[in-house]
Amino acid sequence: MWQVTDEFDRVLDLRRDGTTFIGDVDPGWSIGFAVNGGVLLAAIGRALGAVLDDRGHPDPLVVSAFYLGAATGGPFTILTETVRSGRTVSTAQASLRQQTGSGEQERVRATATYGDLNTLDDGQVRTTVAPPRLPPPDECVRSVNQVPGVDVPFVERLDLRLDPACVGWALGTPSGRGEMQGWLRHREGREPDLWTLLLAVDALPPVTFNLGVTGWAPTLELTAHLRAHPAPGWLRVRAWTDNVAGGLFEENAEVWDSADRLVAQARQLARPGRA
Amino acid sequence: MWQVTDEFDRVLDLRRDGTTFIGDVDPGWSIGFAVNGGVLLAAIGRALGAVLDDRGHPDPLVVSAFYLGAATGGPFTILTETVRSGRTVSTAQASLRQQTGSGEQERVRATATYGDLNTLDDGQVRTTVAPPRLPPPDECVRSVNQVPGVDVPFVERLDLRLDPACVGWALGTPSGRGEMQGWLRHREGREPDLWTLLLAVDALPPVTFNLGVTGWAPTLELTAHLRAHPAPGWLRVRAWTDNVAGGLFEENAEVWDSADRLVAQARQLARPGRA
Repeated sequence: MWQVTDEFDRVLDLRRDGTTFIGDVDPGWSIGFAVNGGVLLAAIGRALGAVLDDRGHPDPLVVSAFYLGAATGGPFTILTETVRSGRTVSTAQASLRQQTGSGEQERVRATATYGDLNTLDDGQVRTTVAPPRLPPPDECVRSVNQVPGVDVPFVERLDLRLDPACVGWALGTPSGRGEMQGWLRHREGREPDLWTLLLAVDALPPVTFNLGVTGWAPTLELTAHLRAHPAPGWLRVRAWTDNVAGGLFEENAEVWDSADRLVAQARQLARPGRA
Repeated sequence: MWQVTDEFDRVLDLRRDGTTFIGDVDPGWSIGFAVNGGVLLAAIGRALGAVLDDRGHPDPLVVSAFYLGAATGGPFTILTETVRSGRTVSTAQASLRQQTGSGEQERVRATATYGDLNTLDDGQVRTTVAPPRLPPPDECVRSVNQVPGVDVPFVERLDLRLDPACVGWALGTPSGRGEMQGWLRHREGREPDLWTLLLAVDALPPVTFNLGVTGWAPTLELTAHLRAHPAPGWLRVRAWTDNVAGGLFEENAEVWDSADRLVAQARQLARPGRA
């Protein structure tokens, strides 16, 4: 159902059987032993897109995913259910599962509302925030595996260039500001699309690294809004937290395209890593 | 299962039968013919809280609700399903339904992760945003029904005092800034709790009113993070949008308690009203 041109497209290359989809995710998309949440979100988005395209609603407008347990590299199944099919939007649900030694385990439960971004578009754009200010990609830092004691092959899968002002954590001198930003594109010349945006909203290192909290930050839930098809070229991603409190933090993300359009907004609730 | 002391508690007074809950919402909680989304969210939160309290996880940490169609005043049923029960958090789902002339209709599909806010709390609070600056409640504007052509009994159900800087829309002179803020408390002396926060995140008039777009703004999805039990007294609620584009807008909300703590954060995706 999908033309496979690069590694990301391989994750999206799902085999459909009615409302069930079978896929395979390479362990190279992992952080430690756990597959990155954005990659799973993209696969789920793609599956629901296939189901709701049947109803004229191919584009995810809002996707909410609850992460129930770490997914590992290998085969997965996505069960889908259409919750409501309307005139301008439709809502559906997905359950991503994997077989384990102790039976099938649900990894992600997601709900999403889809529509047609081009049909919804009334031409009005009133964006009151500005794209992140970043040095050119060549003056940014290629993301390399800097998480102490954890193998992060994921960072090799994307062309991610972090703002040098945000990488002090990798040198033991975190900035003290809960922010992270950088440039993002696929490695093999593939242009960004809506599935890339679902990946991009969870592709940066946790913002808590800049607060001096190392250790990966497991996501409880992530909601992404996709607002426009991205223009070709680099994406810019900015992530920040306003509220680290009570053993939890929220991480906000904005994704801007090469035409300076805010193409995605997302927020997740996560638990700070253990130092 | 609940001591009924005021009108809000009547909405939360659900009759439980296993995993199913039956309730009744007074038409006084409506905007036009549709019951306010925050009231439905509170009822759903209460039902899931009863289910997950059985597992030691009474407090909603994150709730995502997809609004499928307008609910009307009257009886409703909430079906629940526990998705995953873990050591520190559990995830469950809810479907709010109503009987209509043409059969049972699903109004809201919600998913939530619950835990124990007191157990999760590690004492760390690092909030980098500030509470809204508001004139005292007595110098703010009691919210009255100002939506042209629409009956909004909902505004009489709460003691809501809007910042005078945000009510130009009611006088035909919208501020041009997509912001809305004010004080909020229950009418009858009931102190705020986590269910109040679920109501509060969707209790202000749409921020688009201040952009000169009248007409109600239907919510597609709303995600709320509850971060602490609120202190007694007034709540302050601030809502704003950063991105009105492509026929959709996001509305962000913060709820602060009387102890200056950011107790809830929320974001919804909505469609601007038709002028």
